[in-house]
Amino acid sequence: MKGVLVAAAASLVLTLLGTPLFIRFLVARQYGQFVRDDGPTSHHTKRGTPTMGGAVIVGATLAAYALSHLFTWTGPSASGLLVLFLMTGLGFVGFLDDFIKISRQRSLGLRSAQKLVGQGLVGVIFSVLVLQFPNQMFRTPASTAISFVRDTRFDLAFFGPIIGVILFVLWANFIITAMSNGANLTDGLDGLATGASTMIFGAYVLIGIWTFNQNCQTNPGAKCYEVRDSIDLAIVAAAAMGACFGFLWWNASPAKIFMGDTGSLGLGGAIAGLAICSRTEFLSVILAGLFVIETISVMIQVGVFKTTRKRFFRMAPLHHHFEMLGWEQITVVIRFWIIAGLFVALGLGIFYAEWVVGAT
Amino acid sequence: MKGVLVAAAASLVLTLLGTPLFIRFLVARQYGQFVRDDGPTSHHTKRGTPTMGGAVIVGATLAAYALSHLFTWTGPSASGLLVLFLMTGLGFVGFLDDFIKISRQRSLGLRSAQKLVGQGLVGVIFSVLVLQFPNQMFRTPASTAISFVRDTRFDLAFFGPIIGVILFVLWANFIITAMSNGANLTDGLDGLATGASTMIFGAYVLIGIWTFNQNCQTNPGAKCYEVRDSIDLAIVAAAAMGACFGFLWWNASPAKIFMGDTGSLGLGGAIAGLAICSRTEFLSVILAGLFVIETISVMIQVGVFKTTRKRFFRMAPLHHHFEMLGWEQITVVIRFWIIAGLFVALGLGIFYAEWVVGAT
Repeated sequence: MKGVLVAAAASLVLTLLGTPLFIRFLVARQYGQFVRDDGPTSHHTKRGTPTMGGAVIVGATLAAYALSHLFTWTGPSASGLLVLFLMTGLGFVGFLDDFIKISRQRSLGLRSAQKLVGQGLVGVIFSVLVLQFPNQMFRTPASTAISFVRDTRFDLAFFGPIIGVILFVLWANFIITAMSNGANLTDGLDGLATGASTMIFGAYVLIGIWTFNQNCQTNPGAKCYEVRDSIDLAIVAAAAMGACFGFLWWNASPAKIFMGDTGSLGLGGAIAGLAICSRTEFLSVILAGLFVIETISVMIQVGVFKTTRKRFFRMAPLHHHFEMLGWEQITVVIRFWIIAGLFVALGLGIFYAEWVVGAT
Repeated sequence: MKGVLVAAAASLVLTLLGTPLFIRFLVARQYGQFVRDDGPTSHHTKRGTPTMGGAVIVGATLAAYALSHLFTWTGPSASGLLVLFLMTGLGFVGFLDDFIKISRQRSLGLRSAQKLVGQGLVGVIFSVLVLQFPNQMFRTPASTAISFVRDTRFDLAFFGPIIGVILFVLWANFIITAMSNGANLTDGLDGLATGASTMIFGAYVLIGIWTFNQNCQTNPGAKCYEVRDSIDLAIVAAAAMGACFGFLWWNASPAKIFMGDTGSLGLGGAIAGLAICSRTEFLSVILAGLFVIETISVMIQVGVFKTTRKRFFRMAPLHHHFEMLGWEQITVVIRFWIIAGLFVALGLGIFYAEWVVGAT
């Protein structure tokens, strides 16, 4: 528990103090974001705001995790390291994208195929490794069972050991891709994705602590949770939460820095990793409900436009729709935060209710 | 626990759906706020925004508390009812103030002395009654001991039973006045006090649940908490939290409605009542740290001006100072929310650390 507090405090301080230094560095090198030309025209004033702020978030999360383990003098866990690998790996793919955008001075970065290959590579490495490293109780960071608030009886290994692993890799990569693209789409207004991510990581801190206290390894029983490294996942989540909260200081409207793809892919990866390792895959769809509805809005928009040549929303993703309806940008951000908070509360409520009612 | 979830959900829905109806009612009757003339000039555009929104918050909190008890079919507790009385009573004093401002079309409402008498009356009734109603274990909603994270050994009853009660009434009224004025001063920018209060009530939900699980009545031990009605205080806090969160939807920049003194005095009263009944008086100073620094900024400003005729801050309370420094209003609000969140996290950290280290 002390480790959780240290991680949150350390990453918070690191992003609060580190972000302005990073901004100064980027401004000195004239690295500014080129805002995409198909956004609302009011956004064109954003041209020149430095991006790649996600590098600070990822860096602070890694440093805070290390500091927390140094402080409590405990070793890292397989789950914790794998989630951090996923976060950093996807953040790096995003970084390449951001960097090419900036250095070539164009709004398009990596080619779509290159990006998918990068994401896929990181995702496959993660999802293969996450089934290794059994502990003394033969528990691995993730399992091939599909999980809601805990592993369900629907186990992909039912299709045979090898096909099971292949199906799991596909399933895990679907979650990772969906979550990181969801974060990416949500990251369109100052502070929106940062604030929502802070709340989602907050939920994962609580889930980590709870599944640690009610863990089958220490506290066996009908309602216990089969999670390998609960408390270390709470530490990772706390580090990411603190990093986002501190970054929000600088990312809040009017943003002094954007997180860029470095941030949104990294954060999405971290959330997906936490969901897979804490055995809350479907629950994460609720916790990150804001990302989901933003993604669905784009799918509806594209689908409807392709079939009818008409726009379903004024503009997608959803937050731009409300901007076009005349809501002020900041009103959209705060109301979307409230929606994100409701999804988080709903998710935690379901998680807790399942425990009260009993294991299913 | 179910009661806590029901209370939070009910008040949230009530303010989300009820506030626009109340706005329509106020606009139809042409009840708009007269913004004080000594604020930044940019605020003059706010003239006409309806106020007294706190009535929705207080009403939703009361209704959600009642619904929660109906749902779980349990009786109310003395602590819960007294905190709600304090919230409603102070909210009513604030309402009179708001109402006179509006109906007389002037920025000054109740005369200062009238307001103090009203606040004092409610505060004295609360603080006398809160020492009554012993339960089977002779535990009353509050005690004459000064509390930090629990009652300390410094008991005002040490000065004799009658003087002890008198000192307690003075002490309780000091807390109540300080907290409600702090909330009142903080309520100067769209959504600021609402968002900060949401977080403080969130902390009190956690404190209520925690002290319920570790209560001396059910779970005696060296570290147990001597709180009479922990879970009912959590229900009150959850109702107030949900009400603030839902109200924030409408109160966020640009505000469609202000909470007015109805809201700020009521919310401050609720926080003070929760602090007194959950035996966390000094901890509440940290949890509501934003209110404290806003209050201190005014005290410094007035003190320095009286002695040197110079302004220490560009403008007090503190949030106006940063506005005058050129921060956008919304930047001030979000950064002050972050500060409020840090205070809440610090307070909860101290509360938890004391439990880990052991009772003092």
